[in-house]
Amino acid sequence: MKREDLTEKILDIKREKGWTWKSIAEAIGGHSPVLITAALLGQMKLTKAQATEAAKLFELSLGEERMLNEVPYRGSFQAPPTDPLIYRFYELVMVYGTTWKELIQEEFGDGIMSAIDFDFEMERLPDPRGDRVKMTMSGKFLPYKYYGATGNSPAYGYKED
Amino acid sequence: MKREDLTEKILDIKREKGWTWKSIAEAIGGHSPVLITAALLGQMKLTKAQATEAAKLFELSLGEERMLNEVPYRGSFQAPPTDPLIYRFYELVMVYGTTWKELIQEEFGDGIMSAIDFDFEMERLPDPRGDRVKMTMSGKFLPYKYYGATGNSPAYGYKED
Amino acid sequence: MKREDLTEKILDIKREKGWTWKSIAEAIGGHSPVLITAALLGQMKLTKAQATEAAKLFELSLGEERMLNEVPYRGSFQAPPTDPLIYRFYELVMVYGTTWKELIQEEFGDGIMSAIDFDFEMERLPDPRGDRVKMTMSGKFLPYKYYGATGNSPAYGYKED
Amino acid sequence: MKREDLTEKILDIKREKGWTWKSIAEAIGGHSPVLITAALLGQMKLTKAQATEAAKLFELSLGEERMLNEVPYRGSFQAPPTDPLIYRFYELVMVYGTTWKELIQEEFGDGIMSAIDFDFEMERLPDPRGDRVKMTMSGKFLPYKYYGATGNSPAYGYKED
Amino acid sequence: MKREDLTEKILDIKREKGWTWKSIAEAIGGHSPVLITAALLGQMKLTKAQATEAAKLFELSLGEERMLNEVPYRGSFQAPPTDPLIYRFYELVMVYGTTWKELIQEEFGDGIMSAIDFDFEMERLPDPRGDRVKMTMSGKFLPYKYYGATGNSPAYGYKED
Amino acid sequence: MKREDLTEKILDIKREKGWTWKSIAEAIGGHSPVLITAALLGQMKLTKAQATEAAKLFELSLGEERMLNEVPYRGSFQAPPTDPLIYRFYELVMVYGTTWKELIQEEFGDGIMSAIDFDFEMERLPDPRGDRVKMTMSGKFLPYKYYGATGNSPAYGYKED
Amino acid sequence: MKREDLTEKILDIKREKGWTWKSIAEAIGGHSPVLITAALLGQMKLTKAQATEAAKLFELSLGEERMLNEVPYRGSFQAPPTDPLIYRFYELVMVYGTTWKELIQEEFGDGIMSAIDFDFEMERLPDPRGDRVKMTMSGKFLPYKYYGATGNSPAYGYKED
Amino acid sequence: MKREDLTEKILDIKREKGWTWKSIAEAIGGHSPVLITAALLGQMKLTKAQATEAAKLFELSLGEERMLNEVPYRGSFQAPPTDPLIYRFYELVMVYGTTWKELIQEEFGDGIMSAIDFDFEMERLPDPRGDRVKMTMSGKFLPYKYYGATGNSPAYGYKED
Amino acid sequence: MKREDLTEKILDIKREKGWTWKSIAEAIGGHSPVLITAALLGQMKLTKAQATEAAKLFELSLGEERMLNEVPYRGSFQAPPTDPLIYRFYELVMVYGTTWKELIQEEFGDGIMSAIDFDFEMERLPDPRGDRVKMTMSGKFLPYKYYGATGNSPAYGYKED
Amino acid sequence: MKREDLTEKILDIKREKGWTWKSIAEAIGGHSPVLITAALLGQMKLTKAQATEAAKLFELSLGEERMLNEVPYRGSFQAPPTDPLIYRFYELVMVYGTTWKELIQEEFGDGIMSAIDFDFEMERLPDPRGDRVKMTMSGKFLPYKYYGATGNSPAYGYKED
Repeated sequence: MKREDLTEKILDIKREKGWTWKSIAEAIGGHSPVLITAALLGQMKLTKAQATEAAKLFELSLGEERMLNEVPYRGSFQAPPTDPLIYRFYELVMVYGTTWKELIQEEFGDGIMSAIDFDFEMERLPDPRGDRVKMTMSGKFLPYKYYGATGNSPAYGYKED
Repeated sequence: MKREDLTEKILDIKREKGWTWKSIAEAIGGHSPVLITAALLGQMKLTKAQATEAAKLFELSLGEERMLNEVPYRGSFQAPPTDPLIYRFYELVMVYGTTWKELIQEEFGDGIMSAIDFDFEMERLPDPRGDRVKMTMSGKFLPYKYYGATGNSPAYGYKED
Repeated sequence: MKREDLTEKILDIKREKGWTWKSIAEAIGGHSPVLITAALLGQMKLTKAQATEAAKLFELSLGEERMLNEVPYRGSFQAPPTDPLIYRFYELVMVYGTTWKELIQEEFGDGIMSAIDFDFEMERLPDPRGDRVKMTMSGKFLPYKYYGATGNSPAYGYKED
Repeated sequence: MKREDLTEKILDIKREKGWTWKSIAEAIGGHSPVLITAALLGQMKLTKAQATEAAKLFELSLGEERMLNEVPYRGSFQAPPTDPLIYRFYELVMVYGTTWKELIQEEFGDGIMSAIDFDFEMERLPDPRGDRVKMTMSGKFLPYKYYGATGNSPAYGYKED
Repeated sequence: MKREDLTEKILDIKREKGWTWKSIAEAIGGHSPVLITAALLGQMKLTKAQATEAAKLFELSLGEERMLNEVPYRGSFQAPPTDPLIYRFYELVMVYGTTWKELIQEEFGDGIMSAIDFDFEMERLPDPRGDRVKMTMSGKFLPYKYYGATGNSPAYGYKED
Repeated sequence: MKREDLTEKILDIKREKGWTWKSIAEAIGGHSPVLITAALLGQMKLTKAQATEAAKLFELSLGEERMLNEVPYRGSFQAPPTDPLIYRFYELVMVYGTTWKELIQEEFGDGIMSAIDFDFEMERLPDPRGDRVKMTMSGKFLPYKYYGATGNSPAYGYKED
Repeated sequence: MKREDLTEKILDIKREKGWTWKSIAEAIGGHSPVLITAALLGQMKLTKAQATEAAKLFELSLGEERMLNEVPYRGSFQAPPTDPLIYRFYELVMVYGTTWKELIQEEFGDGIMSAIDFDFEMERLPDPRGDRVKMTMSGKFLPYKYYGATGNSPAYGYKED
Repeated sequence: MKREDLTEKILDIKREKGWTWKSIAEAIGGHSPVLITAALLGQMKLTKAQATEAAKLFELSLGEERMLNEVPYRGSFQAPPTDPLIYRFYELVMVYGTTWKELIQEEFGDGIMSAIDFDFEMERLPDPRGDRVKMTMSGKFLPYKYYGATGNSPAYGYKED
Repeated sequence: MKREDLTEKILDIKREKGWTWKSIAEAIGGHSPVLITAALLGQMKLTKAQATEAAKLFELSLGEERMLNEVPYRGSFQAPPTDPLIYRFYELVMVYGTTWKELIQEEFGDGIMSAIDFDFEMERLPDPRGDRVKMTMSGKFLPYKYYGATGNSPAYGYKED
Repeated sequence: MKREDLTEKILDIKREKGWTWKSIAEAIGGHSPVLITAALLGQMKLTKAQATEAAKLFELSLGEERMLNEVPYRGSFQAPPTDPLIYRFYELVMVYGTTWKELIQEEFGDGIMSAIDFDFEMERLPDPRGDRVKMTMSGKFLPYKYYGATGNSPAYGYKED
């Protein structure tokens, strides 16, 4: 069994039942629809309890239930993405990536915004000129470490300048 | 003169003067540092007034000033980006792209979040476990249009189901 | 079930029945053959009503009917396209893309022609030297937005110069 | 001298003079701004007369003038294009390419729309909901030829069925 | 049913029957073996009459017969081709492509040799030093068109200089 | 000095002098314009005598003359070619490559048509429907060799079946 | 039936029988194990007699036997190869390719070493520091031909300088 | 000034002076040669103090000194690397990457080993059979975060199962 | 049977049994979990004895057992890897690869660290700031050989300077 | 100074002097022309003594001399190579790579042929049917190591089965 086959099966059931991702997320236990959707699409894992709920909902086998609790091999496209909706996000990285790098580093020093210790929320922003998709995300700033420093003092620590 | 040569010149001056992007944005007129930085990095244009301010600040020639007011050929990398900070954003699209697509479409119908009619803000989120980079963005939802409809009524309009 | 399997099934039925895309579009309700064809090829969605018509015509299951009403993952090739007919359009973008960019921006300012809020029509242009394929398209011009502007006045709006 | 160096020089002069593509096209002799722009961007050739006019306008050397009358090596990007405006056209080919193929072939038989014997016009379409970019193009339909037919009759000709 | 499955089936039958492409071409009606072979390999279409002959010969279903009469999605490799025999042709384009461009343009002006209105013949050239493969091809020269010309006279026509 | 710089220099002189490839080929000694053009474009070598003639014609230095007598690093594009004229040849390989392979092998057995021991001629074919580009080429057929055969008799030779 | 399916079947039988390539090559008739192995892996053809022997050994059907006698579509990877053993050969070409070119051309003139008229042998070279893999290969030198020469004398021949 | 130009200049001076990376690292202040080397090669930044030392050593300008204190755009190759030494590391990731993923996740749960909060040491391991390169590295394990959890309790925290 | 099918089967059984890689490695005979895991994932081979143990554990057929004893075609991704955990290792090569090259060569001379004669160990490093993944690896240094030296003395040996 | 600039300079001098690679190799000290050529083309290093000889011969600066003694960043093309002579070697790997893998592993067990501890010789093989290029190479076989074995006995050693 491959993860994409399980994803296809889940999408088939969702379609036949006429469920939405929100209703599925609620049925599984009120967690973030983003996380639940990502897991059912094969990009995140569910916890054991969530996987059990999901298995009940979709009437999955034990093997399928456990697969939902496994960490998947992530990555949903060969660059660049061809779907217009997904491409727009990719384009934002292409147009603003260097700017984000400059401003994050100016504010935080050398490091990255974590894509792992990462929060995400999406909401509809009503707007008379046309509603907007609002995305709020935050990732822990992770500073590059000065490994191998041979001095005495805060050898291990990191004090950038 | 190529846009990247102008960018390189601006970065040289910024380095020699010891300026920050924020101070540059203020000097140019208090606009969003994101936009100003993106323009000076060759990914956005400055307005005429901003370009004049920038030209004063960086002591640019008339041709260079006008180039800052030109729309650039955008796109800062061949996919995928190699820089770790920029790559993390790319990775987010790879891991969450399909999820965003599913959830945006469930909420809004068929269409995209515009990367053109688009707001962006970045801020530091203090956190005892390590400060976080917070990014808030909103893009206008653009529904796919039903062109070529031959019926009478709301032929041009779009009423998805 | 994958969308391409449904497409393959629909093409099989079309072939066996000897139908044309035009006759199919009419049978489904007189909508643009472009849109109907694109949807049946897995690049657009049908409305619920259209999907019901299509399901009747092709004798599809409920799951298949609903899949036609789902937004597909779009994008029909890995660049560049190998089919000569499709390649010619790609070539036009390669040869004229920069020109279109220059002229659209000269006329409209910084922004893009939407590929989402987009009309399209194709017709045969009789010509004694050989008939021509005529394509008429229009897309809404979408100006880049000046987000993050900190001034008072038309802070949100966009007044390019 | 490379064609891209000549293009860069022409863009520098255009910027310093503050000219538009339309004014340039008029100065060169009232021809289609699309063709003139494409040629000055290095994707088409000018006729001898046009090249002479262009050389006068831009004060070019004889070698540069003749280069404008040469057929360039065409193609302005490595796929896919990164600039958002140009990408949107590319996206249209990706989303509608198979549809165009099906409908053109249904109407005309086996063949292509020429990208060489090709007309193009762009105009602004005023629209209260936001002006639109209108593009009208027509290309001669070129049928695939049945070469090598060994029968008597219309051996060379092409009568598709 | 996919075109490559039909191709695979035809190759299986050809192998089991011990047929040659020439004998197949004759059986189907004496047309160019190049065209017939290309069609059976999924790169060209057969006419209705040829498809009927082919269906008889290979004992195909009605759907399969009609598929042979359909225009295929052409293109037999992702560049570059790996098979040595096919690669040699690719190499010729790589080594002589620029030369062909220069000489064709010197002789005909700006335009291309059509790959659509195109003849092709292959024969064995006996040679005491080792027989040779002789290929003769001719394609209609298609001149680039000066669309959008605003003058009066031969506005539509094309008179290059 | 790089070969492409020499090519650029030669093209500059050709342009300024207003020469054609044919006149250059004649001036260099009446050899095939294809070979001479390919060599001057950096894809073939000239013989010493030809290089001397070319050096006189273009007033080249001794180093440049000798470079024309050197075998170049061949290959004029990263696949696929973007120029429409060159692309058409590439397309022919993509559409007919498998056919050529099948028919050459049916006629000659396992092997290739040499792209090294290779003749080429191009001519204009007058045609009332539009003149044609005629290309005649022949390459020696090279059979794959049965190396390592351990039998006695025609161990080294090749007798295919 | 695809060639890779036949290869997979042959590998399955070889594994179950516990055969080696050498024993297979002997059973098929004492030919070079390199050629026999390459053919059974789908990169070369067997002669009819060899195919018959192979069919007996592996208990193949007539269609499978004949497929072994067909010339395959060659090429076993998309560049670059990922397997370390195969990659080392690729690396040798990357590191020494330009050197081989220079030295072969210095010795033989303009041309190539044939990969078609090509011998190959592999043996174990005992060595107290670790046994070595010895590969001996020879390919016929093929000189580039001066086609299209218009002089009288050895017009067809090739006398490089 | 581009970072690679500065790297080239530093390499030129190092070569002319006959310095080693170790001696440079000591001269700059006894820090890890890995970090110092990486920074001078344009992949890491130096602290201000280190940059000052480096500037003294290499007699750099103020702009160059400050550039060494800037975070570079990282990434030293387009995949895959061609240099054999660097390729071996890449190969290790290709061969063991999935294994590392399985074992790290089995031990730590869902997350990654940080390439940012990362230690590295290299040493020579004497061995009678040939000395070995020993590399010791450790990266902080970063667990994927359950954002958007709507429950009460440890809503923000992460307790995987 | 393909190796990836066997891998999929083994993963299915592991999931259903609820086994860990460590428990599997112990059951197979106490060998390195890294090696056993890599082999079961299709990147390494098991010895005959290990394969027999593995076959008992997973109840495999004889053919499957023998396949585990076969050397696989290695390489687990098309570059670059999309999974975040695996990508971090790839990123380390991209950021530190040139540094490793410089320092290994400074210490050992011209050569590589073997990825074949290679040790590897992974362990958890407890750390109050977050546990760390520690990886220790060593590879034999392999010096480039001076083949073809024609002098007398240590002609075959290698004494770098 | 970049290595490719030094290579270009060396090629310029070689051309002007009319030297061959063999005469250069002799002048530098009678070493293998393969190694000397590879080093002067920027793919290998010269020893100090050889670099001194080369510097005398080519009248190089001290920095250039030392650069010849540095290990270069190897790799002479982006795959696949476009030059026909070099491509033939690449093709051999593509056609025979899997065969070589099978036969080397059958003879030696799991491992690779080293591309580092590697001998190479090239010679002209006179042949009445056309002289041949003979290449003899041998590389040390490197067995994959069983690291991490926890048993007592030949824990570190490698005894494959």
